[in-house]
Amino acid sequence: MPHGTVKSPTFMDLALREAVAAGERGEVPIGAVIVKGTTIVGAAGNRTREFNDPTAHAEILAIREACGNLKQERLDSCDLYVTLEPCTMCAAAISFARIRRLYFAADDPKGGAVVSGVRFYAGRTCHHVPDVYAGIGEAEAARLLRSFFAERRG
Amino acid sequence: MPHGTVKSPTFMDLALREAVAAGERGEVPIGAVIVKGTTIVGAAGNRTREFNDPTAHAEILAIREACGNLKQERLDSCDLYVTLEPCTMCAAAISFARIRRLYFAADDPKGGAVVSGVRFYAGRTCHHVPDVYAGIGEAEAARLLRSFFAERRG
Repeated sequence: MPHGTVKSPTFMDLALREAVAAGERGEVPIGAVIVKGTTIVGAAGNRTREFNDPTAHAEILAIREACGNLKQERLDSCDLYVTLEPCTMCAAAISFARIRRLYFAADDPKGGAVVSGVRFYAGRTCHHVPDVYAGIGEAEAARLLRSFFAERRG
Repeated sequence: MPHGTVKSPTFMDLALREAVAAGERGEVPIGAVIVKGTTIVGAAGNRTREFNDPTAHAEILAIREACGNLKQERLDSCDLYVTLEPCTMCAAAISFARIRRLYFAADDPKGGAVVSGVRFYAGRTCHHVPDVYAGIGEAEAARLLRSFFAERRG
């Protein structure tokens, strides 16, 4: 058997897996992973339907999980990977949690709040701004969302 | 004994009681109540410290409680009373929950997102706008917050 190059999944790959799993549960396919150093401290997909909870976005669930695991209210040295540009609620929650770096895949012109909409991190009422990195895994994240909504319309 | 006029508490009075209770637990004294008709379906004060959860604002906890009680993701015919202008996270959550009317007491120029800051409900990425009523119980709500922060500085 030839030696292959087995690429280990990136953190965004893992967020995409959470998104796929969310879609398989009938939720909008968005996933998030929170990392401290090289350790995953929170990972979630959307569960708004399952939980009957409009706040149960992937990022909020991952933040709550990470804070619970680390037993702290602030995630200063943690980075968050999410497959879609965070909405207004999640962008603010990410700031409140003092997340260090935010990596997101696809932009969301309709509901995003980082490079779209209220651009929360650029405003006066935002008191902690994460470093933002956009576009990693964008094609896959966008494809997932498109096929989910196409199927629902179909 | 003379007949007195016993005024029953308003829903904002009940939100203020939640705020007082939060302050007594060492949390920032903010409280929220969600009402459907004349029935309280959710009531909470801040618990960010107790829960080690930066998303555990009064409004978020009340929304989650109300959705849990009503077993639905949307609170279409429900009204929310909160003692401080909602922050960016909570303003968005209130919109996602399809809250009908939002009553808030004191403005929050530093962190609010309704009449302050990003003014979320006025933007293009807000897809449900509640009716907003500001100022009811303002003096009491502001006094609570001032004395809480004065004590902490003292």
